[in-house]
Amino acid sequence: MELDDSILNKFGFIARGPKDAINIDPLQTGGKLTEDARRALVEWGDGYSVCDFCGGILDLIKKPPIEEFVHNALPAFLDTDAVRITHGARESKFAVMHSMGQEGDYVVLDELAHYSSFVAAQRARLNVKTVPHSGSPEYKTDVEAYATAIEEVISETGKAPALAQVTYPDGSYGNLADVKRISDICHSYDVPLMLNGAYSVGRMPIHAKKMGVDFVVGSGHKSMASSGPIGVLGVKEDYADIVFRKSPTHKVKEIELLGCTARGATVMTMIASFPEVVRRTQNWDNEVADARWFSAKLEDMGLIQMGDKPHNHDLMFFEAPVFYEISQTAKKGRYFLYKELKQRNIHGIKSGLTKYFKLSTFQVGRENLSYVADSFQEIIDKYQK
Amino acid sequence: MELDDSILNKFGFIARGPKDAINIDPLQTGGKLTEDARRALVEWGDGYSVCDFCGGILDLIKKPPIEEFVHNALPAFLDTDAVRITHGARESKFAVMHSMGQEGDYVVLDELAHYSSFVAAQRARLNVKTVPHSGSPEYKTDVEAYATAIEEVISETGKAPALAQVTYPDGSYGNLADVKRISDICHSYDVPLMLNGAYSVGRMPIHAKKMGVDFVVGSGHKSMASSGPIGVLGVKEDYADIVFRKSPTHKVKEIELLGCTARGATVMTMIASFPEVVRRTQNWDNEVADARWFSAKLEDMGLIQMGDKPHNHDLMFFEAPVFYEISQTAKKGRYFLYKELKQRNIHGIKSGLTKYFKLSTFQVGRENLSYVADSFQEIIDKYQK
Ligand SMILES: Cc1ncc(COP(=O)(O)O)c(C=O)c1O
Ligand SMILES: Cc1ncc(COP(=O)(O)O)c(C=O)c1O
Repeated sequence: MELDDSILNKFGFIARGPKDAINIDPLQTGGKLTEDARRALVEWGDGYSVCDFCGGILDLIKKPPIEEFVHNALPAFLDTDAVRITHGARESKFAVMHSMGQEGDYVVLDELAHYSSFVAAQRARLNVKTVPHSGSPEYKTDVEAYATAIEEVISETGKAPALAQVTYPDGSYGNLADVKRISDICHSYDVPLMLNGAYSVGRMPIHAKKMGVDFVVGSGHKSMASSGPIGVLGVKEDYADIVFRKSPTHKVKEIELLGCTARGATVMTMIASFPEVVRRTQNWDNEVADARWFSAKLEDMGLIQMGDKPHNHDLMFFEAPVFYEISQTAKKGRYFLYKELKQRNIHGIKSGLTKYFKLSTFQVGRENLSYVADSFQEIIDKYQK
Repeated sequence: MELDDSILNKFGFIARGPKDAINIDPLQTGGKLTEDARRALVEWGDGYSVCDFCGGILDLIKKPPIEEFVHNALPAFLDTDAVRITHGARESKFAVMHSMGQEGDYVVLDELAHYSSFVAAQRARLNVKTVPHSGSPEYKTDVEAYATAIEEVISETGKAPALAQVTYPDGSYGNLADVKRISDICHSYDVPLMLNGAYSVGRMPIHAKKMGVDFVVGSGHKSMASSGPIGVLGVKEDYADIVFRKSPTHKVKEIELLGCTARGATVMTMIASFPEVVRRTQNWDNEVADARWFSAKLEDMGLIQMGDKPHNHDLMFFEAPVFYEISQTAKKGRYFLYKELKQRNIHGIKSGLTKYFKLSTFQVGRENLSYVADSFQEIIDKYQK
């Protein structure tokens, strides 16, 4: 293929359709940039911008204050010992699994773990043992079953799993498990515990030590108002020398990070948003109140909220028989809901879904949430006239 | 530590000092954003922006045209079969090493390979055998020694290396090795060859198949006018099913990519810059002419350009006895050069270096290069009056 103008003209600047929509996609609500982050993007956009003053270790750069951020602010924020920036939650999880496990070892995952946890284990050539949940409608992870899973691994292989993980909250129902209890169980078998906080770090207060977790993982683009791909990884000092082991040939370079990770604007957006991110986690109670209020509004329309009830997180899963019913006869079929919402400048419920969908109320605000709820009612009324 | 305002005020938006300087740091010249990329950054800055229309496979997103870019344009651009976006050159290299090698296998690297190639091998738990170079002043990789290295691995382990790699150009001297010859040697032992084009893909024409390489790696933030971290990985079809193998549990997810990689603005900046990047590779002869012209200017002042001569790349390494001599008596000692250049709005020669340094002339343009050369002369004159 010749890369002539007819091909090249397809690229260049491309507009983002839903940029100014009210976005209730759980992937999007916590990653929206702050004004400072938007300015930082432009300022630091060029290639390897942050490397201008690098002496060989990205996270020790003093100007801009990456060292202060990574080695003081983030450990305090996460209540953990050692922190590094990664490319995202999955990359953090892989780094831990790959460092802590030997090929063929086991890792224990909650059944509701994000696909990327399974795939990270597969990439690290580890086996997975899952901890079940209670099924519909609550989908509660069976906390005590971490013991069963660990014992099964020991009896099958003669060796404890290399690691256990809990997804906090899980990415489907937004349930928050009793992590302290899970960590007590894991630690009684000397199994370290990783918290996947992709949907919590940057939204709600997370105290790794207080919860008893050895590793804590966050997603910058999902929950820390940062431009992707970027994530954080917090590690208890007991394991820092394992996960952040240095190269025998290039003494200052950390092997598991391939020397460095977020060598561009991404880390500067995380730093730019950090003050506001810290403050919003302190406002978490209001976010939970918004979620509950919105959930009640939707339940009044006949939708059913699954998962923890009352709910403790902005990520919620709904069963919507009323929309499913409409889709059976609507002209646009199962696409009617997406199109109706789009017409109202609301984005985030995947095109084609009507019966089951998830959404997030995080940082949407009562006014917009009210508008979204009213729009739902309007759509129901329009088709059920 | 309490995250109070006295701490938080250190973060937020931070200005980038050298933003408007003439930057001749080899890390920076090829990563400077195009105007379209700068607009794309702002448009797509939010968190997971590109995921708004993702059906589960990032590189198959149709709108924005990521699929067209990754599966049509980039394979044509690189002259290879299958392409994926990664977080950078090192992440591409690790993905290939980790997929192609089993723990304990060997990989053959040129001795001048970037540290991240060694660290990627260490992360993949592979052993490294190096191919020597000729030493000062040319630092030419001994192409024929790829055969020796491979034979040594075979005689020591009874097994051919899993992979060989050539750095094209190397990141210190900007030398371009005879890749076709290396690939003939490697293939005669059935060893696949990876081209590390961190400093070539996006600067000069690269034709993977024509050169006979099985894997080609590029760095978006270094050489493709993209906001970091981002890279490309091209794979010959023979190996695509190995490197891009899919998860047994999550059928559409590629294990080695952990499902997806550049899930944010980074990929949109690469797409935005692509037309201009294609065009600039077609203008490579002029870039080489600029490099030679600048090198000659500096040699006239008593500096000595190491590596290939005449030079074939914008990345050049200089020995500068004249600056070293000045540093012995200058008031600011070895920092004098950095400070003098800074006063002239020139950035990119690392603070403290005087005797040896590298620089890049890429996209700097004759006018600015002229100004930089004149500044060098001015500084020499000032201290040698
Ligand atoms: C629970 C959960 N964990 C992890 C991830 C992945 O986050 P990242 O993109 O930072 O790897 C997701 C993404 O949807 C998620 O829902
Ligand atoms: C020759 C060479 N290869 C690879 C890299 C790493 O590039 P990336 O940041 O994309 O991993 C560098 C960085 O300086 C380099 O000089």
